[in-house]
Amino acid sequence: MSRIDFTALKALDRQDPLAPVRQQFVIPEDTIYLDGNSLGLLTHATQQRLAEVTSQQWGQDVISSWNQHNWVHLPATVGDKIGQLIGAEAGQVICCDSISVNLFKALSAAFSLLDARGEPRTERHQVLSTADNFPTDLYMVQGLQQLVGSQQCELVLADEAELLSDLSQHITKQTAVVLLTEVNFRSGRRLPMADIIAHAHAMGALVIVDLAHSAGAVPVELDSWRADFAVGCTYKYLNGGPGAPAFVYVAKRHLADITQPLSGWFGHSQPFAFDAKFSAAAGIEKMLSGTPSIIAMSAVDAALEVFESVDMNQLRTKSVQLSEVFLELLEQAELAEQFDCISPAESAQRGSQLSFAHPQAYAICQALIERNVIADFRAPNYLRIGFTPLYTSFEELGKAVQQLQDIMQTQAYLDPRFQARQAVT
Amino acid sequence: MSRIDFTALKALDRQDPLAPVRQQFVIPEDTIYLDGNSLGLLTHATQQRLAEVTSQQWGQDVISSWNQHNWVHLPATVGDKIGQLIGAEAGQVICCDSISVNLFKALSAAFSLLDARGEPRTERHQVLSTADNFPTDLYMVQGLQQLVGSQQCELVLADEAELLSDLSQHITKQTAVVLLTEVNFRSGRRLPMADIIAHAHAMGALVIVDLAHSAGAVPVELDSWRADFAVGCTYKYLNGGPGAPAFVYVAKRHLADITQPLSGWFGHSQPFAFDAKFSAAAGIEKMLSGTPSIIAMSAVDAALEVFESVDMNQLRTKSVQLSEVFLELLEQAELAEQFDCISPAESAQRGSQLSFAHPQAYAICQALIERNVIADFRAPNYLRIGFTPLYTSFEELGKAVQQLQDIMQTQAYLDPRFQARQAVT
Repeated sequence: MSRIDFTALKALDRQDPLAPVRQQFVIPEDTIYLDGNSLGLLTHATQQRLAEVTSQQWGQDVISSWNQHNWVHLPATVGDKIGQLIGAEAGQVICCDSISVNLFKALSAAFSLLDARGEPRTERHQVLSTADNFPTDLYMVQGLQQLVGSQQCELVLADEAELLSDLSQHITKQTAVVLLTEVNFRSGRRLPMADIIAHAHAMGALVIVDLAHSAGAVPVELDSWRADFAVGCTYKYLNGGPGAPAFVYVAKRHLADITQPLSGWFGHSQPFAFDAKFSAAAGIEKMLSGTPSIIAMSAVDAALEVFESVDMNQLRTKSVQLSEVFLELLEQAELAEQFDCISPAESAQRGSQLSFAHPQAYAICQALIERNVIADFRAPNYLRIGFTPLYTSFEELGKAVQQLQDIMQTQAYLDPRFQARQAVT
Repeated sequence: MSRIDFTALKALDRQDPLAPVRQQFVIPEDTIYLDGNSLGLLTHATQQRLAEVTSQQWGQDVISSWNQHNWVHLPATVGDKIGQLIGAEAGQVICCDSISVNLFKALSAAFSLLDARGEPRTERHQVLSTADNFPTDLYMVQGLQQLVGSQQCELVLADEAELLSDLSQHITKQTAVVLLTEVNFRSGRRLPMADIIAHAHAMGALVIVDLAHSAGAVPVELDSWRADFAVGCTYKYLNGGPGAPAFVYVAKRHLADITQPLSGWFGHSQPFAFDAKFSAAAGIEKMLSGTPSIIAMSAVDAALEVFESVDMNQLRTKSVQLSEVFLELLEQAELAEQFDCISPAESAQRGSQLSFAHPQAYAICQALIERNVIADFRAPNYLRIGFTPLYTSFEELGKAVQQLQDIMQTQAYLDPRFQARQAVT
């Protein structure tokens, strides 16, 4: 068995300017966590904030906290903090609901904008996405399509590679909205969003970018890309906690002209006037719907503190380095041949994960997890390795590959326990 | 100044079988909290659960908690616990999103059911509600109406008193959905939902009941009322925390036939198969949309533990007694004349609050709050007093009225600090 050079890995950790950030996280005991692309780790700041929001704000100050602790503006203040990480100036991002729900709002808002421009739906009603976009994105378009009819909104799916190889063949004058996830959840492929947006705009289409695997993982420049809308989650690289509130971005130039149908009272211009008639807030607040979970959103707010000292380009540099080292380690361990890397070979075309196809991917993932190396599995047969530069060390990659090497050599994955599937994987 | 008989009030507390339940709550220091109809208090169980979910489940077990701690089924398990408090057999209630978002789903689902029955929208497309229903309910109908067009869905508003005095004049063959909040948020008036539902069904209409001010406050019997849909929140009488996840009920008889447009991946029959095509879950899970906040929902789950030892009829008895005692105390304090009680005189027609119109309601409320008597204000001029039998004592009512008496006699409410309005009140 070839040996992993831990001396070199430790040297990389010593040189890593982001290494101290790891101390801000609660690292699960004896665990190598390579699944921050699915659920980010808890920070000490979040732990402390949740205790304070619960015991003091809710427990003692109760209802007065809406003013006293500024709960009422939390969606906007958290939104602006997220905005700083995705290239959005203040007043364009708001934290609320789930990606799915926010996508429904963004989609409807996009159509409302085309309507306001006087574009007849008979000529432009298609929503172009890719067949392997994250399913919930497609499901939300299908939901809108079923509600308003396929003559008003019609999902059109392209193969990702085909789309990228010839944008003009797919983005046409019938395309109302291009809906793409910047980083593919299966392959980790990072799409050239700036190009796609420019192309879509040239054809008169609007673009919604899903940043689920981008926000906090790669530098995103929504404003300079001229994105129209974006959605994203906070529970992956932003470490907001399981199922944490998501966010939605609307470019400032569109804010006055859009409407969205999930027009709950938090999106009203004067929620506490209790008018019977809806009148949308002027700003990004019009994307709010019902009362937001303050506990959940406070966790997001606290989790974002980690990023205050982090430069996104520095983070990206380490992310690329982690993935390159991981690939080298697989080579060294003579595992590269049997694990078919489905992520692009060029790091510039990847997000912050690597995905490998293997017929035994599910069982191998379970065997890794039993050894406290937390990777994840995505159907049908992908092993995903997430790199979270805020807390992943180079030495951990060595240990992870060492375990993988042992699992493959001993065929530990054949254990029946690892072959039986659970509800969530 | 007439004196309040605290000996009698203390005797009522000693006889109160629910008095020990108060010990399960974190009671804000030196505070009389009469605003549980706006935001319920924290329980010790919730405080403990949040610490555990954060530190152990998220912090240590991280992603494996989706299976290990059954996060994946939390919406359904919490939903069933809520179901027990609102007369719903298992499998009909699910915890998720906000009331606003759930109402959009329920409304769309109701229309999908009428479509499935072959009812043409040309003949039946009205959503009947009351002009003083909680605004977000009306806003969500307006949102759907704007999205699908007023020939598909049209909000029709009735005056509450007029509606109740002649149901058949308002519920007609054009009525697709009757959307009512059982307990009016301003007046505390409790509508005769069983009658209304029977009447609506006789006319072929469906009924959505908003239980925001009912769940955990009054006995609700959704199944025996034959309600079609219901929504409700968990942050008032269910003590789930600020902006806690809401719930939605769909009668079992309708589950197979409905669709709803916010069809996110958690509502898919096999979310982790990652199919590109949506296929709705067979049961109440089809009402789910995106990934739910586990932290927020765990708080709700823990908060419901209090109800395990509580009989809803016993709770109702105390609720009525609290409101009757409060009215007597106002009489004793010679305040009853200037505070115009807009809640029904008959306790059977009330929820668990009393509302009083007074031109200085806002400032009086602020003056009470400064003295740590937490009531709330609703526009234009209502002082709301919420009774939460799980933790409100009779002695507290005496102390609250004593403070109110002093505020009125000294005209303390004229203080400019109390006259200036804040964002949330």
